[in-house]
Amino acid sequence: MIHHTVIFGENVEMGDYVKIEKNVTIGDNVVIGEFVVIKEGTEIGSNVIIGDLSIVGKKPVSNNNMSRKPNISSAALSIGDGVIIGCNTVLFTGTAIQKDAFIGDLASIREKVVIGEASIIGRNAIIEMNTMIGRYVTIQTGAYITADMIIEDNVFIGPCCSTSNDKYMGIGNYKHQGPIIRQGAKIGNNATLLPGITIGKQAIVGAGSVVTKSVPDKHTVVGNPAISIYMK
Amino acid sequence: MIHHTVIFGENVEMGDYVKIEKNVTIGDNVVIGEFVVIKEGTEIGSNVIIGDLSIVGKKPVSNNNMSRKPNISSAALSIGDGVIIGCNTVLFTGTAIQKDAFIGDLASIREKVVIGEASIIGRNAIIEMNTMIGRYVTIQTGAYITADMIIEDNVFIGPCCSTSNDKYMGIGNYKHQGPIIRQGAKIGNNATLLPGITIGKQAIVGAGSVVTKSVPDKHTVVGNPAISIYMK
Amino acid sequence: MIHHTVIFGENVEMGDYVKIEKNVTIGDNVVIGEFVVIKEGTEIGSNVIIGDLSIVGKKPVSNNNMSRKPNISSAALSIGDGVIIGCNTVLFTGTAIQKDAFIGDLASIREKVVIGEASIIGRNAIIEMNTMIGRYVTIQTGAYITADMIIEDNVFIGPCCSTSNDKYMGIGNYKHQGPIIRQGAKIGNNATLLPGITIGKQAIVGAGSVVTKSVPDKHTVVGNPAISIYMK
Repeated sequence: MIHHTVIFGENVEMGDYVKIEKNVTIGDNVVIGEFVVIKEGTEIGSNVIIGDLSIVGKKPVSNNNMSRKPNISSAALSIGDGVIIGCNTVLFTGTAIQKDAFIGDLASIREKVVIGEASIIGRNAIIEMNTMIGRYVTIQTGAYITADMIIEDNVFIGPCCSTSNDKYMGIGNYKHQGPIIRQGAKIGNNATLLPGITIGKQAIVGAGSVVTKSVPDKHTVVGNPAISIYMK
Repeated sequence: MIHHTVIFGENVEMGDYVKIEKNVTIGDNVVIGEFVVIKEGTEIGSNVIIGDLSIVGKKPVSNNNMSRKPNISSAALSIGDGVIIGCNTVLFTGTAIQKDAFIGDLASIREKVVIGEASIIGRNAIIEMNTMIGRYVTIQTGAYITADMIIEDNVFIGPCCSTSNDKYMGIGNYKHQGPIIRQGAKIGNNATLLPGITIGKQAIVGAGSVVTKSVPDKHTVVGNPAISIYMK
Repeated sequence: MIHHTVIFGENVEMGDYVKIEKNVTIGDNVVIGEFVVIKEGTEIGSNVIIGDLSIVGKKPVSNNNMSRKPNISSAALSIGDGVIIGCNTVLFTGTAIQKDAFIGDLASIREKVVIGEASIIGRNAIIEMNTMIGRYVTIQTGAYITADMIIEDNVFIGPCCSTSNDKYMGIGNYKHQGPIIRQGAKIGNNATLLPGITIGKQAIVGAGSVVTKSVPDKHTVVGNPAISIYMK
């Protein structure tokens, strides 16, 4: 079912079963798969592909046990020109996916996130709310990007990396700070990053490392806890 | 398509495309999303939200190479009052999700599981069969909760934690025992827990730790293998 | 909607909402769930079960920032007799899933992959392109199997294992090599395997280990970095 207030560009292809809610705008040459739900107010640019079984523009919900309530932004989900979205994804409202970004199958992105131009979010990757991701970033498959992170341009985050923003593990509604990953840094697969640290420009974190302290620019760290390879 | 033996409460909202099988009961003020499948016999309380593209009440299946066959329980899936279920979830039959619990997007919960009152199961988290989860528990995004675990009240399990219940890795059909996590314990992100260990009351496991032995009440352990911080 | 060029065997059961594209062949006694998409050219054997909300035969897509473009094979997805596929899965074209294999819910398998006879791919597991998996292999829940791996017969890979094939983390289009896992090896949960290593026959990798070098046949390694238990 497609709401009558939807604005369509030219040459939009659509699956047999789709649900498009009110006040959605869709650009030219957009391809929308089967069993897709496009929620109220979503803005879709031109030359966008949305895979089958995806939900775009979901509003956050919460229960009473959550220490931190979702930020229900009035902003819509905005999907830039040339963005490719996989299948079985869940993308929230109040987020901006900039031009030519790529979102893999089964990925999920919360509200108030920015995904910069041409960046890649791998399959099964999860991005929590209020995180800023720069341009030409690669977040590999299965990586977990917590809330309140800053990931600068040209960063590479390997598969299954895990990050955290909550030093006291769920005690209350204090300030959370996810890691800050500076320009061009590279994080190996299945590395663990603790809250509040900074990974410096062009620094390298080895696969499987547990990073408990900030890493200076251009340093390489490995191990649990991770230390500089110059100190090993 | 909705089977004619379905019992509806008052004020049920439903998506355009849903499939509800026979002998389902649905309470008052329930919201069911688009492209949802509700399998035979599922019992849904009042004030429940079920997100788009979710499957509730799936029956387990197996192949001949599985060392352990699924327990096909005659019990239905039971969803308590006030439960919120995300999008793209897969919830099995024979499981009880108690009142006010929250199940995130893309989560999956096997048969014979109990999720206690007001507990949170994060996005992409996976709960295997025959595991008991208490009240006010938080299982963060992407955590893997193996079969045969006991997780007591007020436990916090960080993002991407991994647990295991099979000491011999798939050799046969002997007794499996997942970790036991006692009341109020906290497990950091991407920690690894081995089979059969107990994490004591209010104990803390650091992020990225590999826990090979039981942890006494109120102790904090870190590292690979994890040891008490008093011994470092 | 079902394309008129689809060839059906006898006794095919199908959900109320399915989309089957052209030139699909379906064997006898096949069960297809609700909200399933079967893409062009897919070949499905007999006695196959395809769970709800799954996509079978997806064609790869990419953006300009990917160092490595997907291989768009002309081959179709082939699903052998007796294969069981879960719900919310995404299976790509150009892949062969051999007889009696089992694919769990929310799993995702890229193009040019072989899954051998009776092997199990756990829930939420991800298999990247161009990886060969033997017979009677178990890939547990949430494991990440990178591209260009060889996994021989009777291997066991524990939950949440992470592998990598890219030594330089996204720098360019050089040769990638994922780990090679020889016959009967067992990898513990949440272990991290680096690019290009070989895990020998019947070798054992402990849970949470970070394996930076090849492991000889029948050796057991643990720790970060993983070393032989005989050397501890």
